[in-house]
Amino acid sequence: MGTTPQEITELDAGGHPVLLGAAVLHTLEKQLQPLKGVMPLVLGDHNTLQHCLPELLAHVPSLRGAATIAVEPGEGAKSLEVCQVIWNHLLDLAADRQALLVTLGGGVVTDLGGFVAATYKRGIRSINVPTTLMGMVDAAIGGKTGIDLAGVKNLIGAFHPPLGVYVHVPFLRTLGKRELLNGLAEMLKHGLVADAEHFEQIANAALHDLDALAPLIQRSAAIKAAVVRDDPRESGLRKVLNFGHSIGHGIEAHAWEGQGRALLHGEAIAIGMVAEAWLSWRMELLDREQCDRIAEVLLKLYPAHHLESSDNHRILELMRNDKKNADGGFRFTLLNAIGSARYDVPVTAAQVQEALEYYRLLVRK
Amino acid sequence: MGTTPQEITELDAGGHPVLLGAAVLHTLEKQLQPLKGVMPLVLGDHNTLQHCLPELLAHVPSLRGAATIAVEPGEGAKSLEVCQVIWNHLLDLAADRQALLVTLGGGVVTDLGGFVAATYKRGIRSINVPTTLMGMVDAAIGGKTGIDLAGVKNLIGAFHPPLGVYVHVPFLRTLGKRELLNGLAEMLKHGLVADAEHFEQIANAALHDLDALAPLIQRSAAIKAAVVRDDPRESGLRKVLNFGHSIGHGIEAHAWEGQGRALLHGEAIAIGMVAEAWLSWRMELLDREQCDRIAEVLLKLYPAHHLESSDNHRILELMRNDKKNADGGFRFTLLNAIGSARYDVPVTAAQVQEALEYYRLLVRK
Repeated sequence: MGTTPQEITELDAGGHPVLLGAAVLHTLEKQLQPLKGVMPLVLGDHNTLQHCLPELLAHVPSLRGAATIAVEPGEGAKSLEVCQVIWNHLLDLAADRQALLVTLGGGVVTDLGGFVAATYKRGIRSINVPTTLMGMVDAAIGGKTGIDLAGVKNLIGAFHPPLGVYVHVPFLRTLGKRELLNGLAEMLKHGLVADAEHFEQIANAALHDLDALAPLIQRSAAIKAAVVRDDPRESGLRKVLNFGHSIGHGIEAHAWEGQGRALLHGEAIAIGMVAEAWLSWRMELLDREQCDRIAEVLLKLYPAHHLESSDNHRILELMRNDKKNADGGFRFTLLNAIGSARYDVPVTAAQVQEALEYYRLLVRK
Repeated sequence: MGTTPQEITELDAGGHPVLLGAAVLHTLEKQLQPLKGVMPLVLGDHNTLQHCLPELLAHVPSLRGAATIAVEPGEGAKSLEVCQVIWNHLLDLAADRQALLVTLGGGVVTDLGGFVAATYKRGIRSINVPTTLMGMVDAAIGGKTGIDLAGVKNLIGAFHPPLGVYVHVPFLRTLGKRELLNGLAEMLKHGLVADAEHFEQIANAALHDLDALAPLIQRSAAIKAAVVRDDPRESGLRKVLNFGHSIGHGIEAHAWEGQGRALLHGEAIAIGMVAEAWLSWRMELLDREQCDRIAEVLLKLYPAHHLESSDNHRILELMRNDKKNADGGFRFTLLNAIGSARYDVPVTAAQVQEALEYYRLLVRK
């Protein structure tokens, strides 16, 4: 293969390791070999099973006998109905508590598969093999699993750390630009909350040059892993990762209610970051110059999303169901500077409306 | 009330305490008082909300403002559909991650409520207030939660220790004899796997004398708590608690498929214990005399259940889905003596059939 086992970086995400490098699938094979008597199962969507599974099996012979379980691509798979199909499938396969579920896909597949693994027979082991940029730098790392209910993202879920997360960057060859930008939004967030230089490097990166992207992916995964290691249950520090996500989740949920203008998670979070950077300035935490730089970078990368003032009410309503709130009020993660965040900042509904208006006027120009 | 806070026994079940004694609800009130800003919710079934909630509220004023969520009594409530109703209810109440779910009921309510608490917004806190003997000595203790799917008991679940289990023995006044015998089966099991004297004391106890029952409940809860403390995830020792449950689960699931002869869990486990005591003798682990004593005690307390030889096949099939199995074979917990168990004993399907035949002939006499 031209790779050697040494070409591996192992990050400690607290409850589990994250492995990256040219030889990462070779390392996965080595991890699986001693697990004799274990029934491996691979969960993916139709795309990942078609485009990524052959490459996985080429490098990881231990998985060649594994049963595969396919779900439809897209957020719709994160439902109780799909869980029920998978649970029944595991039962039909006579999967016992020693079974091992390998999730091969983006955030939807790792969130869904992680939840199924957390709850089947009170918990079986899982391994995450992310195939999207979003999965590699964010969704697959940290043990958060979940499905959607009543229109609320991840309303039902569990903390269930996988045995390991194996990041094989070449899978990104299968993605289009929109999918790459989706994950890039979380990488930009990592820069904004923890590493100003990382933010500028991503802002200037050539998206389709995987060799150039690989070290940035590693840096983003390392930021995520370090935060999760220090606060696995999100009692404090982990909340810094919510920057852009309070307003972003509201906008994402609102877009899903509309007709034909659904946003990807990263696209919604990019809007949320613009609005929440402005809120950070409004609360006198962030310089105006840095606030403007954030808007400049994000608006250059992400398409404008048209909001009406009349949408504000519903967006706020959708934001109220967010898991991040406590005591009935909004608690935001805001920026002190590019590269430094503060969490649990109380924000009023009126201030959120102002931030939405700011974004609306910005993209109208 | 005539009780003082000193009249409390606190057992350590590893992940959580179990509290017993005359002042236990007083202690619960003291635990709740510092939890300001927390939204308490009480989950019960129609019976427990009618018969036990007034007494709970009388002693625990902090719960008087709590929203109550009612489910139908019986195993049918341990379903995904009911979970969905409760999750939606919590969402409608705007319950956030700080919410506290108090489960008031038997094993069904604590299993179901525990699972809902384990998964709503990736986990909220719960407190168990068992109202049945089964709940007090077994189901409410140890952090196992679960619901049924595809006819398999507890197929879906999680380990989610409650903040505490509060055992208020006077709630048993609301139970009939059949319900008491249901829980007594697990107490007899505690004696069989861990304490021969406890087994004989229960065999001779006056079931309706709560004052006489209270110390036996405490001893059983202590056995369960000690086992769970030493092996919370059931990787070894905790399996001793499965005595009677391998065949018992098969018989229970089979009875539920039939018409109008559904067994309570404890009734099925009592049959399982007779059959598995015989298997223990058959495998040359247990004396014939002790095997006969076990059958004598159990057949005196529990009604005969009529099985046909033609039922054996289906019972075995149902047993194969049991979480306790590994590598496709049956692994049983058997007895070395009354008061001493051994787990992970390989047993063949043919031996299970023999044990079922033994029980069948025994009750035919």
